[in-house]
Amino acid sequence: MLERVRVELQERSYDIWIGDDLLGRVCEFFEPLEWHHLVVVADAHVAGLYGEPLLEQLEPDGRVDLIQVPAGESSKSVEQANRLWEALRALRADRRSTVVALGGGVIGDLAGFVAATYARGLRFVQLPTTLLAQVDSSVGGKTAVNLPTAKNMVGAFWQPELVLIDVSTLESLPDREFRAGLAEVVKYGVIMDAPLFEFLEEHADSIAARDRRTLITVVRRCCQLKATVVSEDERETTGRRAILNYGHTFAHAFEATAGYGELLHGEAVAIGMMCAARAACELGRVNDDFVHRQQRLLGRLGLPTMLPHPIELNQVLSATLRDKKVEAGRLHWVLPTRLGAVERISGVDPAVIERAFVGAGCAPRGESEAAPAE
Amino acid sequence: MLERVRVELQERSYDIWIGDDLLGRVCEFFEPLEWHHLVVVADAHVAGLYGEPLLEQLEPDGRVDLIQVPAGESSKSVEQANRLWEALRALRADRRSTVVALGGGVIGDLAGFVAATYARGLRFVQLPTTLLAQVDSSVGGKTAVNLPTAKNMVGAFWQPELVLIDVSTLESLPDREFRAGLAEVVKYGVIMDAPLFEFLEEHADSIAARDRRTLITVVRRCCQLKATVVSEDERETTGRRAILNYGHTFAHAFEATAGYGELLHGEAVAIGMMCAARAACELGRVNDDFVHRQQRLLGRLGLPTMLPHPIELNQVLSATLRDKKVEAGRLHWVLPTRLGAVERISGVDPAVIERAFVGAGCAPRGESEAAPAE
Repeated sequence: MLERVRVELQERSYDIWIGDDLLGRVCEFFEPLEWHHLVVVADAHVAGLYGEPLLEQLEPDGRVDLIQVPAGESSKSVEQANRLWEALRALRADRRSTVVALGGGVIGDLAGFVAATYARGLRFVQLPTTLLAQVDSSVGGKTAVNLPTAKNMVGAFWQPELVLIDVSTLESLPDREFRAGLAEVVKYGVIMDAPLFEFLEEHADSIAARDRRTLITVVRRCCQLKATVVSEDERETTGRRAILNYGHTFAHAFEATAGYGELLHGEAVAIGMMCAARAACELGRVNDDFVHRQQRLLGRLGLPTMLPHPIELNQVLSATLRDKKVEAGRLHWVLPTRLGAVERISGVDPAVIERAFVGAGCAPRGESEAAPAE
Repeated sequence: MLERVRVELQERSYDIWIGDDLLGRVCEFFEPLEWHHLVVVADAHVAGLYGEPLLEQLEPDGRVDLIQVPAGESSKSVEQANRLWEALRALRADRRSTVVALGGGVIGDLAGFVAATYARGLRFVQLPTTLLAQVDSSVGGKTAVNLPTAKNMVGAFWQPELVLIDVSTLESLPDREFRAGLAEVVKYGVIMDAPLFEFLEEHADSIAARDRRTLITVVRRCCQLKATVVSEDERETTGRRAILNYGHTFAHAFEATAGYGELLHGEAVAIGMMCAARAACELGRVNDDFVHRQQRLLGRLGLPTMLPHPIELNQVLSATLRDKKVEAGRLHWVLPTRLGAVERISGVDPAVIERAFVGAGCAPRGESEAAPAE
């Protein structure tokens, strides 16, 4: 079972291949690139799982180097990017070298940013090994590292030449990480594909059991949906791409205040989607049923729909105002209108947002407390 | 006297305005940008000269911040880029903010790279105040910082929205820096515009005297030439843009070995152009007359045509092999075929290149010396 999704972006168009055991036959997918030097970037864990067999297959066709970075979100830093730039230099990478990200979203974002900026741009291939990366971060060309005070604040739009998604790699994922990836899958259903949402409801058990065929179907659909949106709005300028941020402004606030890594991104997104749903419900855009249906599916897939411990409301509110998608001081919210459709709106009553945060388990400020220092 | 050059790059097209005292009426040029927040980046020296009047004019129209960086090539570093990213964050810059580079090539390259990468890309304006920046680095969208071992190794192609060239700022330039900028001017003549070369020969004195009208004519012509090349090959992929590197592979080797900043870039380019001319002459591509004519003009404009002190041949040869334009280990050289025309060729006999370096004052290796450690 091998599926192909084409991302249409004029001269930057590329293919996403989805199947199982693709890492066992990478050479045929790499061949059209006519590569002569690959630099594979992976964390120690993923390098241990897939690094050696990958290098063994590719080495007969050209020079292959492997650079390891520490596992975890903290590697998405300017410091690690600088380390990789220096490492590429030491390896004498040049404009005909190709950077290969082997791993999850952290590796894809970091290696992609380094590929975008080394020698003003090297070719780039994504081999995502987590569900989150396979359905979301490896598609669409967003790359970035974090600043100490802001996620993804330094980055570039840089499209890969090829994305190779091997769902068999999902079998080695810890349960919690696998489930976290499902949040983005549910998101696609809510924002633009009611039939996908229904498919998830019907097949929640085989998804949880990581059945390969079901996963290929789901991953392919998500990639197709994302590819459509990205083709329409590559650089997030028309507002179309913003629908992908459903739940994310809330999620980023949780991630910024809970500290990077405490909540997995997908977990924060699941809770953020519940905030968005509740806000939409209060505004009369969707009914209670919608909110409960989303909550039920997230719950069945093992995702949190509430914060594990309370965060101060003031903290998350400050964080939303620092979000990089704030435009000229104006916050936009992606809110559902029905299953499979969302809208991006501004001017939402802050009290509605506050109540949505509180509904997710934020600690409301006491009467005596001062307003947030903004 | 106000001249306009249009850089045609589809949706990234923009205008370059050239005139005198333009910094005294910036508002009219900024108005079409519909900006609401400007972040001006300048070094302390340039900020002292032009910062305050600029801010005073612009502040009635929106929020304007000024960030200072230390003067000199050493500011083109990952460290300074990181400082600027953090500063933008502290200023709450968002995607509708515009970065303005006020200064020479160092500021343009650094601020441009930061604009290209902050929040995955902010709008960018160039206000070049050195001749080098006005005729070369502010046009064409190349931005970069240096790695400790390689100039311009980390960067992006990022086009400005507007370039505003005020030749009156050239009056405050130190003599040496002004002359260094003329190297790139001569370069345009040699590589693609014999009439410009002749104009420079005829008007060398009024150029040296920094006559404003003559400078506007010269700067406008250079911008036009560069815009043509850049429009044909924005990302240096077709080879067309490479003609702009005439003399530069030699120059980069001098700069890398003499230490950044000891030779001004334009000075290194002038010496590098002499190397390229001599190599071309030895290969029978041009005659002695060509070499002498180029040397005479560079000399009349106060530019060096020999190294001020010898550099070891082995050092410059190693440096050329580390140049980021080496493709798959293959060096290309831009060599003249006649006045106003160059070609990019590979496979040049290394002995010819060595003799060209020696002709510029490199110290040839002794018979007993070992080959470069490559």
